Amino acid sequence: MLTIHDSLHFKENDFDITAYGEVLLDMIAREESPLKECSNFTRYLGGSPANVLVNMQRLENKTAFISRVGNDDFGEYLVEILQNEGVNLDCLQYDQEESTPIIFVNKSKETPSWLAYRGADINLKINDTIYDKINNSSIFFTGSFILSKNPARTTAIKAVEHAVNKNKIFAFDPSYRATLWPDGDKGNKIVRELITQADFIKPSLDDAYHLYGQDHPENYLKKYHNDGAKIVILTLGKDGLLISDGNNEVLHIPVYSKKVVDVTGAGDSFWAGFLTGILKGLPIIEAAKLGNAVAAFKIQGVGALSSVPPLMEIISYYDIQPIEGGNFNE
Amino acid sequence: MLTIHDSLHFKENDFDITAYGEVLLDMIAREESPLKECSNFTRYLGGSPANVLVNMQRLENKTAFISRVGNDDFGEYLVEILQNEGVNLDCLQYDQEESTPIIFVNKSKETPSWLAYRGADINLKINDTIYDKINNSSIFFTGSFILSKNPARTTAIKAVEHAVNKNKIFAFDPSYRATLWPDGDKGNKIVRELITQADFIKPSLDDAYHLYGQDHPENYLKKYHNDGAKIVILTLGKDGLLISDGNNEVLHIPVYSKKVVDVTGAGDSFWAGFLTGILKGLPIIEAAKLGNAVAAFKIQGVGALSSVPPLMEIISYYDIQPIEGGNFNE
Repeated sequence: MLTIHDSLHFKENDFDITAYGEVLLDMIAREESPLKECSNFTRYLGGSPANVLVNMQRLENKTAFISRVGNDDFGEYLVEILQNEGVNLDCLQYDQEESTPIIFVNKSKETPSWLAYRGADINLKINDTIYDKINNSSIFFTGSFILSKNPARTTAIKAVEHAVNKNKIFAFDPSYRATLWPDGDKGNKIVRELITQADFIKPSLDDAYHLYGQDHPENYLKKYHNDGAKIVILTLGKDGLLISDGNNEVLHIPVYSKKVVDVTGAGDSFWAGFLTGILKGLPIIEAAKLGNAVAAFKIQGVGALSSVPPLMEIISYYDIQPIEGGNFNE
Repeated sequence: MLTIHDSLHFKENDFDITAYGEVLLDMIAREESPLKECSNFTRYLGGSPANVLVNMQRLENKTAFISRVGNDDFGEYLVEILQNEGVNLDCLQYDQEESTPIIFVNKSKETPSWLAYRGADINLKINDTIYDKINNSSIFFTGSFILSKNPARTTAIKAVEHAVNKNKIFAFDPSYRATLWPDGDKGNKIVRELITQADFIKPSLDDAYHLYGQDHPENYLKKYHNDGAKIVILTLGKDGLLISDGNNEVLHIPVYSKKVVDVTGAGDSFWAGFLTGILKGLPIIEAAKLGNAVAAFKIQGVGALSSVPPLMEIISYYDIQPIEGGNFNE
């Protein structure tokens, strides 16, 4: 039974983490208006798994990506960024028919809206190179966007099964949104089945609401644990986060930054810092503080991939404690 | 046998023209770079049939549109523009699954490129409202973009058959591009079959190249007539256009404007002016001059829908002659 005071230890692997999922064009509106009224857009690299990996590369981890883009200009643009960051792309697939996916997003705080143009991502197919990459990685990560349509969903489920069978640590971002799923599909059920298999999940209050309906944070934690979740990190926006293993008391960590410039990608930054801490052998609770620290640096800059300082600087700045088993200085 | 000196006469119909095809978001890059390097985009209403109808409304025609958009913010944005211009939208369909289509275009003169995100447009389905609208229109218009994928292609072919059976004038823009068609589809053949049925076609030199390969303008005209085309208007860019009925001599019309600001949508403006002339009973050659005049106004402004002056102003400015049968002053 995993507790928030445990540390994990890994044998040496070719990759610290392999992530499965979407890389896409985030088209961010320049006007703070409803999407219907926005005329000007700027593109960025987007997709939660891609952001997590880029941040983890910057924190000096070895990362690999399983994804699929269109054989087009936008796909080339995204691939070049990932290559320059050092993400391994052996498992990147090119679709000859479908385009690189895009999400249009407005910046309005009052009427946030988005529109997804799916494409190549949906066609992600399983193959032996994917299994090999998972075999050679310490952690396997995926999110929920990529689960909403087949064949990518079936591929994800096979990859997760393989990772769990090989005793890999499975980190899952359960951000279920019914609107992304075809009518009649049991998205809620599928996301909950993956929660059962995950070692770590990091839902937001909004994610919990979409999965379970309106409730209080402590009740959400109970529901996740009832569904079989091991370690749950429930993010509360400006109120920080709760971390729970379902047995010990629930711990609260406040937001580390008073200055907030842009929260886009804060969750992906958290994942990167948290999983870096886990890989370094930090106790889970300290790894969560490291995730919180990386997110704090992120929200003081603009963009999902705003600069992350060197790992040691983050650790000393926020006084994160390795206690026993930590190996920051190796 | 239709000649370029003929005038057409129409009985009173509810609509002067019904067009079939795509309305979409033109996302125009603000940088003059290859698409891969463009970061900033501005959206406009796009889609050749939609542009033709808006221009025809501004030239005081009654227009109706058969099209399909996504049930999303971008679809709403496009529909509002069309409604404000007065285009009849009884035959506009909303797709509950697929999104409003988008074309990304760069402005570079040296390496022009585009990327199409198809969606709702592909699902255009035939119904009795469409047949009714065609029955009550003088002219039926369609282009080639909408032919590239099914079920929209099958719907187009049925609509064309119906229009031809009902002795409607059929105007067709044969801009075939293999890249838009699924592999192995006989796009070339299908476009040529529609050319056979059309009263008017208006290919560009580029369109002719994609259909027949490299050749000279006069040979292209012969090839179109060999394929069964009646009146062919071959546009030559800065060199104006050729108009031919396959029997009389080929006539050349130069570009009417020395000032060129933006040629986007010049062809759609030509169609609007030309078909307005045809509807007014101008001899075909004079209608082509009217089309040329409307295009001349267009290329002096920016955007596919830059302002078109009142019809009488265009006519007097470029001294277009009704000769006999013209009814400008009705």
